[in-house]
Parts: sequence; C-alpha cells; structure tokens
Amino acid sequence: MGTLRRFEDIPGFDITTDVLIAGFGGAGACAAIEARQAGAEVLVLEWSSGGGGSTALSACEMYLGGSGGTKLQRDLGITDTTENFLAYLNACFGDNGDAERMRAYAEGAAEHFDWVESLGVTYNRSLFEGRDVVALTDDSLMFTGNERAWPFNTLAAPVPRGHLAGGAGHDGGKVVFAAIEKKAREVGAEVRVDARLIGLVQDRDGRVRGGVARIDNKEVLIGARRGVILTCGGFIMNEQMARQHIPKLVEIGRPHGNPGDKGDGILLGVAAGGNAINMGEAFCDIAHYPPSHLTYNIFLNDKAQRFINEDVYIGRLGIYATYQLSEQIYMFLDNKHFGRPDYVENTEIVAVGETVEEVERDAGLPEGTLQETVAFYNRHAANKEDPLFHKAPQWLEPLVEPPFALVSYRLSEIKPHIFTLGGLDTRPTGEVLTPAREPIPGLYAAGRTAAGIPRSSRGYGSGMSVGDATYFGRLAGRQAAKAPAR
Amino acid sequence: MGTLRRFEDIPGFDITTDVLIAGFGGAGACAAIEARQAGAEVLVLEWSSGGGGSTALSACEMYLGGSGGTKLQRDLGITDTTENFLAYLNACFGDNGDAERMRAYAEGAAEHFDWVESLGVTYNRSLFEGRDVVALTDDSLMFTGNERAWPFNTLAAPVPRGHLAGGAGHDGGKVVFAAIEKKAREVGAEVRVDARLIGLVQDRDGRVRGGVARIDNKEVLIGARRGVILTCGGFIMNEQMARQHIPKLVEIGRPHGNPGDKGDGILLGVAAGGNAINMGEAFCDIAHYPPSHLTYNIFLNDKAQRFINEDVYIGRLGIYATYQLSEQIYMFLDNKHFGRPDYVENTEIVAVGETVEEVERDAGLPEGTLQETVAFYNRHAANKEDPLFHKAPQWLEPLVEPPFALVSYRLSEIKPHIFTLGGLDTRPTGEVLTPAREPIPGLYAAGRTAAGIPRSSRGYGSGMSVGDATYFGRLAGRQAAKAPAR
Repeated sequence: MGTLRRFEDIPGFDITTDVLIAGFGGAGACAAIEARQAGAEVLVLEWSSGGGGSTALSACEMYLGGSGGTKLQRDLGITDTTENFLAYLNACFGDNGDAERMRAYAEGAAEHFDWVESLGVTYNRSLFEGRDVVALTDDSLMFTGNERAWPFNTLAAPVPRGHLAGGAGHDGGKVVFAAIEKKAREVGAEVRVDARLIGLVQDRDGRVRGGVARIDNKEVLIGARRGVILTCGGFIMNEQMARQHIPKLVEIGRPHGNPGDKGDGILLGVAAGGNAINMGEAFCDIAHYPPSHLTYNIFLNDKAQRFINEDVYIGRLGIYATYQLSEQIYMFLDNKHFGRPDYVENTEIVAVGETVEEVERDAGLPEGTLQETVAFYNRHAANKEDPLFHKAPQWLEPLVEPPFALVSYRLSEIKPHIFTLGGLDTRPTGEVLTPAREPIPGLYAAGRTAAGIPRSSRGYGSGMSVGDATYFGRLAGRQAAKAPAR
Repeated sequence: MGTLRRFEDIPGFDITTDVLIAGFGGAGACAAIEARQAGAEVLVLEWSSGGGGSTALSACEMYLGGSGGTKLQRDLGITDTTENFLAYLNACFGDNGDAERMRAYAEGAAEHFDWVESLGVTYNRSLFEGRDVVALTDDSLMFTGNERAWPFNTLAAPVPRGHLAGGAGHDGGKVVFAAIEKKAREVGAEVRVDARLIGLVQDRDGRVRGGVARIDNKEVLIGARRGVILTCGGFIMNEQMARQHIPKLVEIGRPHGNPGDKGDGILLGVAAGGNAINMGEAFCDIAHYPPSHLTYNIFLNDKAQRFINEDVYIGRLGIYATYQLSEQIYMFLDNKHFGRPDYVENTEIVAVGETVEEVERDAGLPEGTLQETVAFYNRHAANKEDPLFHKAPQWLEPLVEPPFALVSYRLSEIKPHIFTLGGLDTRPTGEVLTPAREPIPGLYAAGRTAAGIPRSSRGYGSGMSVGDATYFGRLAGRQAAKAPAR
C-alpha cells in the first residue's frame, strides 16, 4: 500500500473515468452521487464484496444542526443556531479542531439533513429525551454526546442533534446506507466490488491522474480525468499502523470498524505528498450507559478518586480513564442504583458490603479513601451539587442504600472500543493538502481517511463520524466533478 | 519543504559526495565521523550558521549504561547489566517503544561512552547522589530520570546513567559537541553552514540518489553515491506542524529546541516514502526541582487530588498534569519545606494560612477537599508510607509546620517546555522505513528526525535524546558508508 506510479512511466490506462472513488462507504457513496449529479462519469472501487463501510455498521445517528435547526429539530420546536452549533463543536474540539471545517459543517449540516431525507430515509418527528447511546424507541432525535454535561453545557446551549432513521435502532446505518447506495446507482455511478485501489498515478507536476487497482487478481490502471477521491476509512484494522500511532490504546482496546479500515487511503495520500495529521488521537469508550440510571453512581480510579462527571458521553469517560495512572477503573454503586451496563462485557463485582467501609476494606483500598470520596459526594449530592466535577443535578442522589458495591471496569478486561481520528489534512471541499497546506491537484479525501470534524475522544459524540463522512463526502464529490478534465 | 525531485528528470548533480548529511547537530556530526572513518567522502549541510543543534544547547547528560556498566559507572563501583538497562527502558517506553532499537541501545551504550571519552571529553569519577535536573557540581554521573521512583524502581534496579562532562553543568552540550565537531573536522568531513537541504532526489526505483540544497540563495543539486542521512532535529519550531500533531501541548507550552527544529528531515523523509510515527507524543515538563526539598511537598489538581508521586522526573509530572481535567495545578507546601523551583517561572502563591482549612478556604476549594488530601497524606507520611502513589520513603515527611501555602503551577502560566518525540520510523542502523517497514534505499535518519528511544514524556529522562542521537547517528553513518556506491 502507498505505492506511487509515475504517469509518464505507464503505458496508458486500461480504463478511464472522470472521478475515481476508492471506498464505497458513507463518504464514497455520497461523493459518487454528487459527482455524478454534477455530470461526471464516476467509478467507485470497493475493497470488500459489498458497500457500506463503517457507516452501514453504525447506528448512523447523524450529528446535524445549525441554521436555526434541521427540519426535524424545527418540527419538534427545537432551535439550533449555526453559532450555537459551532460553539458546541468548539467546546468539543477547540484544542485540535479545524476551524474552517467546523464552520462549513455548522453552516451546511441542516441542508444535509434535507438531502438525506430526500433519499427516502424516514425520520419520525419525535424526540428521545432520555440518556442512551442509541435510542431503541421509534424516536428520531436525541442527545448523543456531551451536550448536557459540564463543561459543554456552560459553553453552548444543549441541543439534541443525533438524527436516527425512524425505528431502525442499531440498524440505522444499514437503512441510511441502503438509501444512499440506491441513489448512487440510480444516478449512474459505476461500482466495482472486490476491487482495491493499491496505488495512485501522479504526473511530473504532482497532479494525480488516476490509480492502480487490484481487480480479479490483476492490476488495472485506471485514469481519472477530473480526480481521485480517497474514502477508504480509517486505520484501526491495520495493527502495525495502529501500534505506531496509538500504542497505548491498542494495548487495552478492541478495534472497532469495518475490516477495510486498513489505512489504505491515508497511506496512498501520504505517498502522493499528502499530510497525515492528528494521528495520535483515537476514540476510546467505556459504555457506562444504558441503563441510564447507572449515571447516578460514581466512577473512580484505583486511588478511589473520582476523575470525571459521570454524565458525560462514553468516549469522554473512556479516554479520561486512560489518562489515569492505572488502568484499574471502578464504578461505586449503592443498592438503589445498582445495575450492569448493557454494552460492556467483563465488568466484575470486586467488593460488596453493608457499609462503604466494608467495601473499602474488602476491595483492599487504603483506609479512608473510598469512605472520604463517597461521603464528600453524598454530602453535596444531597443538595444536588457536585462542586468538583459538576455532574448535572438530575443525576445527583446520595448513594446511601446498602448494600454497596465496587465494580471493576479494568480497561484491559472490558476492552474499550477504539477507532482512529487521524487522517489526511484536507480542505473542507476535500482537496488533500501537503504539509505546506497546498492542495495536491486531482486528489481528494473524505470520511475517516481525512482528519475530519471529530478529533478527539474527549469531545466525540455519536453520529459525528457519519455526519462528517457523508457531508464532506458530498463536498468532495462536487469539487472533484467540477475540476477541468485532463 | 518535502520537495522531491526525480533523478531521471534532473540534468545532473552540481556536486557529488559519498554520504550527504543534513544537519550538523549531535546526530549528524557523529554520523559524519563514522562515515568518514569508514572511508566515505562526507558532506554535511547545516541550515544555521554553525553546528551543534539541540545537542549543543543541552546539558548533554548522555543516558548510558548496560554491558555491566560504562567505564564511569564501573569506576564508581556501579554495576549495570544490559538486561537491567533494558528492563528500565521497557518500564519507560514499554507501551510504545521500539524493542529492537532499545536492545541495540542497551547493548551498545557502554561502548558509546568509551567513544565519547576517547574524543577528549572529561568525565570525573564522582557520583552526584542528589536529585537535580543537571548536577551543578563537578560530578559526572547522576540519576536523571525516574529510576528511583515508583513504578520504575519495582521494574528495574535503580542505576544512575546520566553522564555529564566534568564541571560543565548546563554547558555540557557545548563541551561535548566541541569535541565531536573537532573530531568530525579532523577526520575530514566537509561541513557547509548556511546550507539547507530542501529536497531529495529519488530515482525511478525509489533509491535516494542525492538532494537539493539551498546554498547562498541558489539551488545546488548534490549527488550522494552511498546515501543521504537526515539529522535535522524534530519539529517543535514548526508551529503549523506542531499544531497538527500536538495541539494541546502547543496551546500551553513553550517550544524547546533549536530554531532549526522545523521538521525538515521528517517532511523530506515522508515525501520520499518514509513513515512518520509517534507524532502525537511530546515531552512536557514541570521542573519542580531543584531545589530537591520541594519533593517533600505534594502536587494537586484543581480538585485538590494528588495525581502522581512527586519524586518522578519533571517530564512525567508535566505530562500527567496535562492529563488532568483542568490545567490548574497546585503545589501544597508547609513552612518547613517551602521554596520556589529554580527553573519554573510564574508560579504564584494563591493561598496561605496557619491551618490547612484556612488555605483551603482562601483558595476557594470546596470544604474538606484539601484537608482530607493533606490529612491522608500526613497520616501515612508519618509512617514513611504513601499507599496511593508510592513516593519513596526518603521524600515522605508530614506537612505539618505552619504556615501552609498553595502555589499555582497553572500550566498556561508556567509554560512547560515542550519538544517532539515523533519522527521517521527507522531501523536501529538508520534505514528509513516505509509504512510497510521496507527500507528506502539510500535514505537514513537519526536524532529527533527519527522516532528514537524516548517515545513519551511519561518515561523520558534527561540525556535520553542526546544519548540516542549521538549513538544512532554513529550507526547510521557507518551503515550509509558501507552501502555500495552508485
């Protein structure tokens, strides 16, 4: 992977198209639709035997808002200004976000919803007000990230932005992708499956002129008159690459994505002069809800210290857990709020007692540590206050009903889901940029092959990747199609 | 930067040598010596007007040991087996270290000391047993990292490995580099200053055949019959690049290095097909000693929680400080152990009181938080115990003498020193590797242009970069010199 062929050295192309797209997931399929609709001939190569990528594997809770609100938000009486949406994105990724891209997204996401709906995806006009990772009701709008949690709730007005296909639940991605795929085929994009782009063809001036694909065990040279779009996903399934960039997380976590997340697009782009950025950041979760009532309990490190407000999103809890000195993480619960998380395997009750002191002793924690943490928490929770971590009042109740328990969420045992958030530096419109931030003519990227909107697990929320992939996939398709043909 | 020229496209070289080296710092100069001594013609290009790089700016406490001990260690009766040295390196970088490189270093570092000494650098036969970042005595051996701190002291026998030029103190790098430079010139390496390598010349088969330099405002094409060695330092002085890879640290810290740390070598290497790895890791310090007695005090986050054993190295304290939810970090001190750190500016006393309660109130910390942390610490410190963080007994004394103080080490105010620890993936012998870990013929790298021994601030110790740069610089020089001439 990452092979580069010189245009002047090849005998000619076996096939030629206007826009060549590598990867038929959410980003690639949306790029195909827009490029085709702009009049370009489009050929999509898909490494596996069918399309969908990680988009189809996800619940596809597209994270959309701004412009006063998507049609769905507005139908439910919810206002979401572009500035408020942007304020939230800045709260999430202020330290490493791409300002230009975040603004483009905040400005365009509401229209993107109309577009997805126009493909025939049904979104019910009902809001899920609860706390879940994926609403398993028929509701089509929900809070999916840290909107209602500190400090985000102090930086932007909390607005639900997760848009779910009605009643699809965890199958949302299949439903949405089916609609996208149908459209891509309708408008005449050609899709070749079992076809992997293994190299780019670049001319002497640096312009990408096409690619080399592996199809039916043969190398095929494919010319692209207007451009090549890399939408091959991230690199979490490339073990070597993951170890080179996120070794700590690989050690404890379980790769989450589709088998094609081999880093192909990133490697191809870098070989052509592109710049891979943000490669050390990845998603890492502890899915501590549902059930939502577990949020009443408290998370502790191995010193029995709390380290985060427990009403945060699963990705924020997870990554802050990895920042602790030890991977031994606990949840402390009382009888009233006891439960097991639906989506985390291998949690283990390590101590139970009629008093906190008993639990502390039973767990082998130094005397006073757990007792002081719980007593402090309870004292303030009784007043609906959390002076240290600012968990929202809604989740504050003293943990006082015996028996009490300490449940281990040891990271290497629960195995957080991990996926990568680094990729090619691109313009919002997809042009792949060199380290000097100059576009490489003829080369575009979107989806997790690019460094997109979500740039850290600290600010991640469900639906940000699929929202970003499909939206910026469209922009890249449009941009490539309007490039002059060579 | 990162420009690539095709060998077949250029008219010919203006100058030709055997081994072309970009950067005359510790790595480049050592590479030049070895390449020249192996019989190769050597041309070194240095971007600035003189040599030295970050090596000359450092105290150059070369981190060396193994093989039973360096001559200096052994003369002081200190044994340091290769396995113990390796165990320590693994404790430091186990999660993201390069096993092959660490072994090569553990096996070769003792001989490297002999070599440096043979250049005429004087190392006094005396051990500094105290705790300091750089010994300002005449002693030439000291502990420079986390050797004596938990958990390192449980994973490897603590051995001092920082080798300082006698009496040189902070000028150690100047002294050592002067000796290296003298040798390089003696053996006949040609050095051109004010000469920046701005591109590589690569042939159709991927072999690097030379480079393009900017000398006297003109582009000069330089052929390298045996190879090009990139020793251009890291990228901490390239603001754009630093923001792309370590945005959080750039936000709070102050870049530490030489002005040439522009990432040139990394960008050139990647443009030629190399793989930049570990780019998200960087050094970040809180230089909380000297004076060493400050180690008796405790560090707290903004919740008044301790988060690390205070007897760790400055880089470990610093990076764990960045893992806290807030950048507001405090040191809590009593009168007996009061003091200001020699190397940290802008610390500020935020509260003083005759009791801990008074300090807590004065600082606006929630009632009980500081009191409980201090009481717990003191209770165990009285028994020379630190059950939570395992600070060594030597630094454990109850903090009980009024008045008490809380001193702010707010990160964005104290501005940690930061420098990069990512770079090109290479073999220990310097060959630059592609993402598939195949060597790029004719291309080598060492020093902070490569991802070397130190790969995180969590395990860093003073002298690891200069030790790595000079040692692996030598290996790269030797390797390039023995490549067949083209």
